[in-house]
Amino acid sequence: MAAAIALSQRGRGRTAPNPNVGCILLDAQGRVAGRGWTQPDGRPHAEAMALAPAGERARGGTAYVTLEPCAHESTRGPCCADLLIAAGIARAVIAMADPDPRTDGAGITRLRQAGIAVETGLLADEARAAMAGFLARRAWRRPSVTLKIAMSLDGCIALADGTSRWITGSAARAHAHLERARHELILIGRGTLAADHPRLDVRLAGLGGRAPQRCVLSQSGAAPDGWLAIQTPADIAGLPGDHLLIEGGARTAASFLAKDLVDRLLLYRAPILIGGGLASLADIGLFDLPDAHDRWRLTDARTFAPDRLEVYERTRAD
Amino acid sequence: MAAAIALSQRGRGRTAPNPNVGCILLDAQGRVAGRGWTQPDGRPHAEAMALAPAGERARGGTAYVTLEPCAHESTRGPCCADLLIAAGIARAVIAMADPDPRTDGAGITRLRQAGIAVETGLLADEARAAMAGFLARRAWRRPSVTLKIAMSLDGCIALADGTSRWITGSAARAHAHLERARHELILIGRGTLAADHPRLDVRLAGLGGRAPQRCVLSQSGAAPDGWLAIQTPADIAGLPGDHLLIEGGARTAASFLAKDLVDRLLLYRAPILIGGGLASLADIGLFDLPDAHDRWRLTDARTFAPDRLEVYERTRAD
Repeated sequence: MAAAIALSQRGRGRTAPNPNVGCILLDAQGRVAGRGWTQPDGRPHAEAMALAPAGERARGGTAYVTLEPCAHESTRGPCCADLLIAAGIARAVIAMADPDPRTDGAGITRLRQAGIAVETGLLADEARAAMAGFLARRAWRRPSVTLKIAMSLDGCIALADGTSRWITGSAARAHAHLERARHELILIGRGTLAADHPRLDVRLAGLGGRAPQRCVLSQSGAAPDGWLAIQTPADIAGLPGDHLLIEGGARTAASFLAKDLVDRLLLYRAPILIGGGLASLADIGLFDLPDAHDRWRLTDARTFAPDRLEVYERTRAD
Repeated sequence: MAAAIALSQRGRGRTAPNPNVGCILLDAQGRVAGRGWTQPDGRPHAEAMALAPAGERARGGTAYVTLEPCAHESTRGPCCADLLIAAGIARAVIAMADPDPRTDGAGITRLRQAGIAVETGLLADEARAAMAGFLARRAWRRPSVTLKIAMSLDGCIALADGTSRWITGSAARAHAHLERARHELILIGRGTLAADHPRLDVRLAGLGGRAPQRCVLSQSGAAPDGWLAIQTPADIAGLPGDHLLIEGGARTAASFLAKDLVDRLLLYRAPILIGGGLASLADIGLFDLPDAHDRWRLTDARTFAPDRLEVYERTRAD
């Protein structure tokens, strides 16, 4: 399932409005017979991609899928539960049920009625995190929001004069560009736009075409050519795409946090002290320290020498 | 040697002006025959403590010592090189040479002249870190300085109104008290003293007697009863003890960093965001970002759930 989740990430940021699913198909002897992930624009689905190369080897085999196979016919393609049944698999392992009301358990039921052994819940938290955009759109009718901050150990994002090149090293910056490629949307504030005119593109070999749509948070609604503009954080609901990356500045980041509209933090931390520099966050409306606790959970930590990346996710009751 | 270094930490903060050394003695069959560490006020030395319980079992054995055994007679006790020779050990493994000019290689030479096989350099970096106070006093004629900061992910040490209870949880705070017990001296700024009147004691069972001497950084030189006062960071040279812990506030921390008088950072980080709070550091005199790099190295990271501790050490050419 971990491998299927890794495959699912290949579609992240490109499958909206469909979920980015991953699927691994084993034959009856447990050998990998097919691997698939949801394709750009959402079709074909991961199961169909995995079944295509497997052919007859799927018979009697096992499908590992990160999301319940869909049970609804679509003009854009067949339903995956029926495809798996027709391929003759014996067993399906499913990380989580599909919250789409057109499926929502119906895919699992259909598989079981066809005599397929179904297990659910394996690595469900990891699958949920991998499909955060799809699930945020379903649950909250808005994109999943990631806030990226490149900071010093003392939490500064620039010297007092605004200089921020460079706090983190080239490895951390390359990873930040990879994160851009996993988002349909990238947003900065009006102040950062005016000060830096950032390109916000993906400067990684082979991923140059994956630059996210640029957006600016601007009360006036003004935006450069080719950019989208929103006037308030809540306006992200109307943006196209299920993954939004916020890259600053401190006031823009704070305005989203104040509305509890951030789901994930990417903190790239350089082993430096700045002291008296620009703070990473402006006022987020916190009045009592206890209210700040129990909101963020560390889910990943990596070294991009000499820097460290920490990923925190917002803990929310569903 | 790692075990000897761990033993050496038991004396940390209590052996000045002597180094806090650790020693493990193995008999000829490789069984532990004695363990020792430098006692409070610096005597007896670690080797003597390890030899005492070993007695005849030391003959033909191996001594692991974190620092070269001393070669100079003292009115306070015998020289350790001679003690080891008299005990009849066959081999000595020494992490690092003693920079004390009265020994500085003479201990190793004396052991070798007595026919003892001597190896040096094993875990030298770790031994050096464990004896940072002694070595700082030798090299720079001042205590080793540790700066402790308890902060949010965005680098704040308090809300804008000064509230800082609590950012970190009880496990992290308990560890911070253990760190106090490893320092002879603890220092805060005049502003923090006036605002918080902190006790700066060690509130851990069994370690209540290990509270460090309290000091205040105060340009006027005024200090409460029982406190020491220094007027500038450079005045730490005259303080008694080899380990100084700085606990704030942001201006005091910055004044030491501006003079490059901090050797070690203890960053306790809670998984919370404050936003618009009090920054952890005031101006440290940094004008160019490149100057901030290549100064700090991560040497330890631990979880005190839900918080994280990171230890950074200043990288200095010797």
